[in-house]
Amino acid sequence: MQNTECKGFKAAGIAAGIKKKNQKDLGLIFSEVPARVAAVFTRNRVQAAPVVLDRERLESGQCQAVIVNSGNANCCTGAKGLQDARAMTAAAARQLGIDEKLVMVASTGVIGNPLPLHKVEAAVPELVGSLTAEGFLDLAQAIMTTDTVPKLVSRTAELHGKTFTVTGVAKGAGMIRPDMATMLCFICTDLEVPQTLLQEALVAATAQSFNRITIDGDTSTNDTVLLLANGCSKAKVANKEDLKPLQRVLDEISIHLAREMVRDGEGVTKLVEIKVMGAQSDKDARVIADTIAHSSLVKTAFFGEDANWGRIFAAAGRSGVPIDPDNTNIYFNDVLMVKNGLRCGDEAEEKATAVLKTPEFAVTLQMNLGTGSASVLTCDFSVDYVKINADYRT
Amino acid sequence: MQNTECKGFKAAGIAAGIKKKNQKDLGLIFSEVPARVAAVFTRNRVQAAPVVLDRERLESGQCQAVIVNSGNANCCTGAKGLQDARAMTAAAARQLGIDEKLVMVASTGVIGNPLPLHKVEAAVPELVGSLTAEGFLDLAQAIMTTDTVPKLVSRTAELHGKTFTVTGVAKGAGMIRPDMATMLCFICTDLEVPQTLLQEALVAATAQSFNRITIDGDTSTNDTVLLLANGCSKAKVANKEDLKPLQRVLDEISIHLAREMVRDGEGVTKLVEIKVMGAQSDKDARVIADTIAHSSLVKTAFFGEDANWGRIFAAAGRSGVPIDPDNTNIYFNDVLMVKNGLRCGDEAEEKATAVLKTPEFAVTLQMNLGTGSASVLTCDFSVDYVKINADYRT
Repeated sequence: MQNTECKGFKAAGIAAGIKKKNQKDLGLIFSEVPARVAAVFTRNRVQAAPVVLDRERLESGQCQAVIVNSGNANCCTGAKGLQDARAMTAAAARQLGIDEKLVMVASTGVIGNPLPLHKVEAAVPELVGSLTAEGFLDLAQAIMTTDTVPKLVSRTAELHGKTFTVTGVAKGAGMIRPDMATMLCFICTDLEVPQTLLQEALVAATAQSFNRITIDGDTSTNDTVLLLANGCSKAKVANKEDLKPLQRVLDEISIHLAREMVRDGEGVTKLVEIKVMGAQSDKDARVIADTIAHSSLVKTAFFGEDANWGRIFAAAGRSGVPIDPDNTNIYFNDVLMVKNGLRCGDEAEEKATAVLKTPEFAVTLQMNLGTGSASVLTCDFSVDYVKINADYRT
Repeated sequence: MQNTECKGFKAAGIAAGIKKKNQKDLGLIFSEVPARVAAVFTRNRVQAAPVVLDRERLESGQCQAVIVNSGNANCCTGAKGLQDARAMTAAAARQLGIDEKLVMVASTGVIGNPLPLHKVEAAVPELVGSLTAEGFLDLAQAIMTTDTVPKLVSRTAELHGKTFTVTGVAKGAGMIRPDMATMLCFICTDLEVPQTLLQEALVAATAQSFNRITIDGDTSTNDTVLLLANGCSKAKVANKEDLKPLQRVLDEISIHLAREMVRDGEGVTKLVEIKVMGAQSDKDARVIADTIAHSSLVKTAFFGEDANWGRIFAAAGRSGVPIDPDNTNIYFNDVLMVKNGLRCGDEAEEKATAVLKTPEFAVTLQMNLGTGSASVLTCDFSVDYVKINADYRT
């Protein structure tokens, strides 16, 4: 098994009875010393209580523990919800013997039901007692909702001759269920990093990874990515130049976890990268890529293993940014299917169909209008997706 | 059977061998005298050849015939496609003995395949020979692609004591298949109407109807709505005041045809009106309504007959316009499910679930922020939708 230890950090995950069937549903991260913390939250205007509280706590730039539950999103729960979120952090702080203000919190699960706070409070002593340096797998399991596999990754790198570690856990069946408060991600590093640089690194990594994946275009009320840096490796980031090794590892970990989320999305059978090149700007390229990545017609065609370039072309056409259809090329992997707006013929279609039969492939559009480019990770839209999401609450 | 005759107009629909199985696939509208014409086209930047040609022909404001085929969209077909579209109008004009410039054209079907022009040209004599005053049903059948029923409606009204008629046909399995070049609509009236007023009336009617429906958010490359007014009823619109009876009938016909399209969408089991009230502006309200109407999670919940207000709330939250979650109310028909951002309880949920079991219902959001309102017609997202769209080209 992968070594996920990260100096000075411990983690735990136990069953507190919030989810049914005695599944793990309560997790904790603890750092021996207060860590610097960076965070990225959902942009949804409906924000869950833990997100509201974390934003407040983030202002100090310091965090020593994160308590997280699955099975209940503590969202749309009003003033009582915010009280409950505070109480969760207070319970953890008491047991850990640290200041409540150094504890952050996250919740994931169904929206609109009151948090069973008494279950959380009753389980906190066992939770704290379970903390170990190897506990990240338990934590990854405790934050799963509809995920079928825990998502956990760890990497080491060097800075100024000193080795440091970055360990990340995430949950999310691919943004597929906003009402289950979809994605959470916690990343720990034993580097010492000033808070402003830490935030900068996290925002850059998120832009490359979690903000580039889509399953169904819905965003959740609870999405939270936290990055904690406790300095226990003795390696120290002093300036932007020093940040590079961390950025490299952080990007890699974030992209890995983001891909794992899409791959684990319910009903997903295809992982597809939509690349747009030659647009008038990066922004235009992103709009085109997003429109294609969100098109139900494109996604059902992927599910049907159909190289239906007409749907891709039509999605690009309705994206709202300037395109020149007569100068647009479309590729499936390296198979040129559409050249200057026209279909390339039966041989190309046969080759493209073979590409569609593979579980991972890329669709590339060359717009021939400029140098703007963007890339987005999406998936197919399957019969199982509809079944799962139609039947979810029944 | 409904009387659909409209003075001075004839219509026809025959099988020309473009579609398989000897189905009707070629249609014609002919007016005894040149009619004023108004038009609304797709906003997709990828535009089919017939749309390009019609835009050109529209400049004269006059039209005496419309030839239309199903089974092939004549889109992404390059210079040859535009030539073929012109040749279609030329063939009809020759046979009818009128100027080619008075003929408009529409196509619907698969994108990217060359139009079988020889089949169209060979069938034109039979097509013209089939023209009758009662031919609108044949026309409605000839433009069907994945539609399961022909869409045809006719109404009469009075202006200055004279009776006039408006007859409309449409096709579209509910915007569900942009690559089948989704919606076409042809409306004829025997009123005499100046072209500018005619265009004004059509734009107003379209805003109320075809621009308020969504199945999957994709828009087609061939969408066309044509309105022809030939004056044969002798009733004459001279000014904006005179336009009112036409506007009333036109709105009614357009809304009727739009609803028919959504109802006939593949896999559709629920017709749902999303109403947003109390937003900061009408525009904001429309953005919120559209975001909910397009959300795959909301639509799969409708399919599952699940009153999943959390998904509706979360979609509103991510719409990008200001909302105040703590002052938002959500209704299913007249059942108040969420008040001031909080769930109303089990009894409300039971009643809401009963609403979801009906085939047509409304979801209303009261934002309590202002006086902006909007309403959009959508449908559920079913297992059959995915199956149909995954398997379409195979």
